[in-house]
Amino acid sequence: MKALVYGGPGEREWTSVPDPSIVEPTDAIVRIDSSTICGTDLHILKGDVPEVTPGTILGHEAVGTVVEVGSAVTTIVPGDRVLVSCITSCGRCRFCKEGHYGLCTGGGGWIFGHLINGLQAELARVPFADTSVYKVPAGLGDEQVLFLADILPTAYEVGVLNGRVEPGDTVAIVGAGPIGLAAIMTAKLHSPGRIIAIDLAEARLEKALEFGADIAIDNGREDAVAKVMELTGGLGADVAMEAVGVPDTFELCTDLIRPGGRVANIGVHGHSATLHLEKLWIRDVMITTGLVDTNTTPRLLKLIEGGRLDPTPFATHHFALGDTEQAYDVFGAAAETHALKVVLTAVPVDHQLVASEEQLIGAEIGV
Amino acid sequence: MKALVYGGPGEREWTSVPDPSIVEPTDAIVRIDSSTICGTDLHILKGDVPEVTPGTILGHEAVGTVVEVGSAVTTIVPGDRVLVSCITSCGRCRFCKEGHYGLCTGGGGWIFGHLINGLQAELARVPFADTSVYKVPAGLGDEQVLFLADILPTAYEVGVLNGRVEPGDTVAIVGAGPIGLAAIMTAKLHSPGRIIAIDLAEARLEKALEFGADIAIDNGREDAVAKVMELTGGLGADVAMEAVGVPDTFELCTDLIRPGGRVANIGVHGHSATLHLEKLWIRDVMITTGLVDTNTTPRLLKLIEGGRLDPTPFATHHFALGDTEQAYDVFGAAAETHALKVVLTAVPVDHQLVASEEQLIGAEIGV
Amino acid sequence: MKALVYGGPGEREWTSVPDPSIVEPTDAIVRIDSSTICGTDLHILKGDVPEVTPGTILGHEAVGTVVEVGSAVTTIVPGDRVLVSCITSCGRCRFCKEGHYGLCTGGGGWIFGHLINGLQAELARVPFADTSVYKVPAGLGDEQVLFLADILPTAYEVGVLNGRVEPGDTVAIVGAGPIGLAAIMTAKLHSPGRIIAIDLAEARLEKALEFGADIAIDNGREDAVAKVMELTGGLGADVAMEAVGVPDTFELCTDLIRPGGRVANIGVHGHSATLHLEKLWIRDVMITTGLVDTNTTPRLLKLIEGGRLDPTPFATHHFALGDTEQAYDVFGAAAETHALKVVLTAVPVDHQLVASEEQLIGAEIGV
Amino acid sequence: MKALVYGGPGEREWTSVPDPSIVEPTDAIVRIDSSTICGTDLHILKGDVPEVTPGTILGHEAVGTVVEVGSAVTTIVPGDRVLVSCITSCGRCRFCKEGHYGLCTGGGGWIFGHLINGLQAELARVPFADTSVYKVPAGLGDEQVLFLADILPTAYEVGVLNGRVEPGDTVAIVGAGPIGLAAIMTAKLHSPGRIIAIDLAEARLEKALEFGADIAIDNGREDAVAKVMELTGGLGADVAMEAVGVPDTFELCTDLIRPGGRVANIGVHGHSATLHLEKLWIRDVMITTGLVDTNTTPRLLKLIEGGRLDPTPFATHHFALGDTEQAYDVFGAAAETHALKVVLTAVPVDHQLVASEEQLIGAEIGV
Repeated sequence: MKALVYGGPGEREWTSVPDPSIVEPTDAIVRIDSSTICGTDLHILKGDVPEVTPGTILGHEAVGTVVEVGSAVTTIVPGDRVLVSCITSCGRCRFCKEGHYGLCTGGGGWIFGHLINGLQAELARVPFADTSVYKVPAGLGDEQVLFLADILPTAYEVGVLNGRVEPGDTVAIVGAGPIGLAAIMTAKLHSPGRIIAIDLAEARLEKALEFGADIAIDNGREDAVAKVMELTGGLGADVAMEAVGVPDTFELCTDLIRPGGRVANIGVHGHSATLHLEKLWIRDVMITTGLVDTNTTPRLLKLIEGGRLDPTPFATHHFALGDTEQAYDVFGAAAETHALKVVLTAVPVDHQLVASEEQLIGAEIGV
Repeated sequence: MKALVYGGPGEREWTSVPDPSIVEPTDAIVRIDSSTICGTDLHILKGDVPEVTPGTILGHEAVGTVVEVGSAVTTIVPGDRVLVSCITSCGRCRFCKEGHYGLCTGGGGWIFGHLINGLQAELARVPFADTSVYKVPAGLGDEQVLFLADILPTAYEVGVLNGRVEPGDTVAIVGAGPIGLAAIMTAKLHSPGRIIAIDLAEARLEKALEFGADIAIDNGREDAVAKVMELTGGLGADVAMEAVGVPDTFELCTDLIRPGGRVANIGVHGHSATLHLEKLWIRDVMITTGLVDTNTTPRLLKLIEGGRLDPTPFATHHFALGDTEQAYDVFGAAAETHALKVVLTAVPVDHQLVASEEQLIGAEIGV
Repeated sequence: MKALVYGGPGEREWTSVPDPSIVEPTDAIVRIDSSTICGTDLHILKGDVPEVTPGTILGHEAVGTVVEVGSAVTTIVPGDRVLVSCITSCGRCRFCKEGHYGLCTGGGGWIFGHLINGLQAELARVPFADTSVYKVPAGLGDEQVLFLADILPTAYEVGVLNGRVEPGDTVAIVGAGPIGLAAIMTAKLHSPGRIIAIDLAEARLEKALEFGADIAIDNGREDAVAKVMELTGGLGADVAMEAVGVPDTFELCTDLIRPGGRVANIGVHGHSATLHLEKLWIRDVMITTGLVDTNTTPRLLKLIEGGRLDPTPFATHHFALGDTEQAYDVFGAAAETHALKVVLTAVPVDHQLVASEEQLIGAEIGV
Repeated sequence: MKALVYGGPGEREWTSVPDPSIVEPTDAIVRIDSSTICGTDLHILKGDVPEVTPGTILGHEAVGTVVEVGSAVTTIVPGDRVLVSCITSCGRCRFCKEGHYGLCTGGGGWIFGHLINGLQAELARVPFADTSVYKVPAGLGDEQVLFLADILPTAYEVGVLNGRVEPGDTVAIVGAGPIGLAAIMTAKLHSPGRIIAIDLAEARLEKALEFGADIAIDNGREDAVAKVMELTGGLGADVAMEAVGVPDTFELCTDLIRPGGRVANIGVHGHSATLHLEKLWIRDVMITTGLVDTNTTPRLLKLIEGGRLDPTPFATHHFALGDTEQAYDVFGAAAETHALKVVLTAVPVDHQLVASEEQLIGAEIGV
């Protein structure tokens, strides 16, 4: 088969590799129908994630079709269409039993395109298949569910649920890249009174308003803390979500939160931040961090089925799987291409569900 | 002043009574700008609520303007526009401190138009004003907030919150009268996957679909349990709300609920029901009952301010306060008039915010 | 091997049967070191549970040693001492993923001694072994953990956790048989202010006081509702647990609960009860039912390890496995023998951990 | 009357001041029967709390007897024995209605001995008396309830409840001064599997074991992180509480916590700490801060009444109110005197409830 293989920092190639096969009785082999690229893949390519060794197939998000299952697999059969999630769950360790699949100590967690071969490929071996894939409900297209593989549950669990968004809340979301937009989209499921998006780039703030933010603050031109205080009668936001991953934006979150509020960190951080305990000790704040567990995937699937959630606006560009290298170029240059998520499909783009005119334009730019 | 005075079973009159005055230092006097009639008022008129004595002014829902406050009142001043809630909170008893104002043992709870004079009047004495009224945010009209006095928090707290509606849930609401419709409207704040309305009257089921139900089941023509099972793959609904108040509909809720589901009773019952413990003991169900506490009023006000919730479709008919007797006739004949809530206003109807063409028509029918 | 085989209503025999063997790759074979008898086994023997077919080995509680595992089993190896729980979890269905193992739709739930061969035997086949057994911490004797197979998690989950026992609460437990005593023992983990035990038998009430109840009410001689009201200043209990399984005791629970209180049904019911909605609709009560999930077993094991919980007082009588028939006689005549739980051991009694002098006496009576 | 008056940094005097009187209709005047000194009082004396102005009476913890009430006070009458809490609740602002009295914006919060005159005095004016004092249950002595004025609810709410201590948890408490000891004492109400106390002083660690810690780690001699990891199989503690108030101990808490664990900060901090987001972002931790609300006071009172909680071991030294200056000397030299809490009483020490021989010795040292 063919796959996108990591060759060390800066090196990647869509190339021939051996087909995967069943290793454990709990494995399944899945033919990839649609995949996508994550910001984390770009980090890996820069060499920032040293545990990824050259020769590894990248990618941790896919929709595919089961082609073979191991002897212990009971819940899926060849032919089933499944969502393959970024998080693998052994289903047996203490953390998996508690629903914390991201903390799995039994061989799961984030392993695709990281510790084992990933999903930007024609075929993939999926460990612990019974507890790590989700059947795609009949009637839903790949593109409607593909982003449940990572970005939507990440924003929803680590941002919205950790931040305990309640109806009526004022929610500030710092960072309006794909993950911040996913936080806006999924926060709306809990009916906040208003969502304030904060970013430095005007284009991203426009996108935030399109995705459902009520107010956009350009933190480069305005004092975001002052503005949030003005909007909240001097109190601060009920919930703040960090969706960037640098110390400044985290500290901004702790500055604009109200007494009794909650700061949910979603960003991936490389450096420590300063925690102003001399101000915060008395303010009854809750700060949370987390990797996604994907335990809300069944709930998000039901919401898509019920027409309550539509992730297709994330699909800005479309490519054939064979053009994954070009897709990396477009996605890696998001500042210029305004790519949110690229869709890689095993069949030509014109056979796929296409969500909007804008996406077609995106696809044209992309291909 | 004038007020609607209860004269014993079947007797009511809009008549002259002495103006109220401050009795306790925690009282306020409020001029009523808008009021409405509740199904409970009809029960009182039938003589079903014997603790209401002849001579009592009826009504427990109003928006008004503060005209005088007692010496201990600190949070409102004359001139403030306030929502006067059906539930009075002493703010000091154990239940009020826990947010259970409906259970107040310090002189509050449901007292207006019940144990003391009510709000279908030109003026009202409001006990424990600091903890029992809510300032109306600038920019909101009376009709946008009036139904927060009872029906919306009742449906939201006793139905939606007690029933723990979660995003993606299948929610069955039995009874599509005003309270069932309010349950539909407020359930949507928690993004259920789908809402199933069940009723015997086609007109009410149509209303349910208008208010946001996804599926309507006419329980007179179809087997509602069979239909819900069909819709849920044989499992049952995640949440069922009883919004009628008779044993049959309560038992229907316990029949159509899934294992692990929740039955929230909102209806006011006059008779006991049969609880099939021989089936339910093993099914992990939760059944709740309750009177509204109105502790979600601030949250609901924020949602109206943020444009997330619009209660004005409940206002089907409009009357001047002086025409309250006519309003009772229209509201009491809801089966024919299709009245949901009538709005009684201290000034002529044409000076008021009017929400829709349909309401105007309603007003014409009403007046 | 030998096992206790059900032969139809009234028929049971300790007799030779074929050894079990691995059927599915997720199976394990466990040598039973200790087992016990449950009240449910007595019901089966009476013919009350028709889905148990003649020829089935009874029993659903054991501590044993793994002797063989299937190819997909990864968390236990031969030689491991394990608790085999009354509830089997497939680990893959929706309910198991949510921790509701008792509702398992993937082939688990309560199956031992019910739908498949049980644990009153020298050997047992244990399906879904990775997700259905618990390693016994080093240093703990069989008798310290055996009652975690059913009675303790049942009382704790279905009674204490469903009833949301909070520090300081007044908790009324109706029924002081083994399950009521287990509710008393595990309620204490949440530091209620006082525990009131209610029963008709003086001997059971004495036991309740021994197990930690603060107050005993003999419901045959005293008006339990009046007494609870007197103790609570007319308010009622915060939590009531039904641990009998008949309509009267359930209704008693709904009578003695305070406004805002919780009724947790633990009893197995054969008949419907009357639910006095005409009184309860306004009282903010929560009623729960449930089968045990055993998802608290890891927590209970830690509490035993930490010396916070000691279930050994339940072991009133000891027998060799080969004397299981005699054990049934003693357990079945609990009114005379005062048996709470009998311990069946694969090795002679004098080799076992013995918890107290009283237990030795119990053992003498038993053997 | 006489009172302990702050005279500016380093200055304090037990001296004559005018008697307080009713100012607002919600006030009460309370005769102080017992009071105590808090670590915060020492900080004020050092000049660390500049909003305390010279001339202010210090102290925010007392048990007393109501001598007069304002016209709006309805729940207490002269002669009632009451606990006067460190936190005053207006009962009407948004935060008080939510139970967050510590965040009161209506004139309450921490005001005694801070923004208004305090409780180390013969008499005190108590604002918002209905919502800020707690009747002492008959049968309880002053010393049994006095420490509910601050230290016990602080440790319980900000440490134990914020840290969500669950039965079976491993809880690490960093700092074994009075607040750390109160955290140990109240954590036990939730039955953790084991409590690990960490401190630098051997005397304090001995006290921690006396108060119920299972393991003591001398952080000066041992690597506390390594030791906790060893005790938890390399995982870390479920809950860590910071009870010191310096950056190092806060960072220690974030180092020894398990993935998915909770860090509850109780300490009062003067400096910022470093938050290692580069390690923590992926570890699913929750960090909380907070000032006490005292909303658990009713629960703690019930636990004392029920014999489940005994705070008297905190009373190491006893003084007459007139000897408050000496009491400050003893309490301020806690490193030598081993004072935990001093009890100041309006009547001679020998008339008071005395909890233990050890306390008598403490009293002798003190006086």
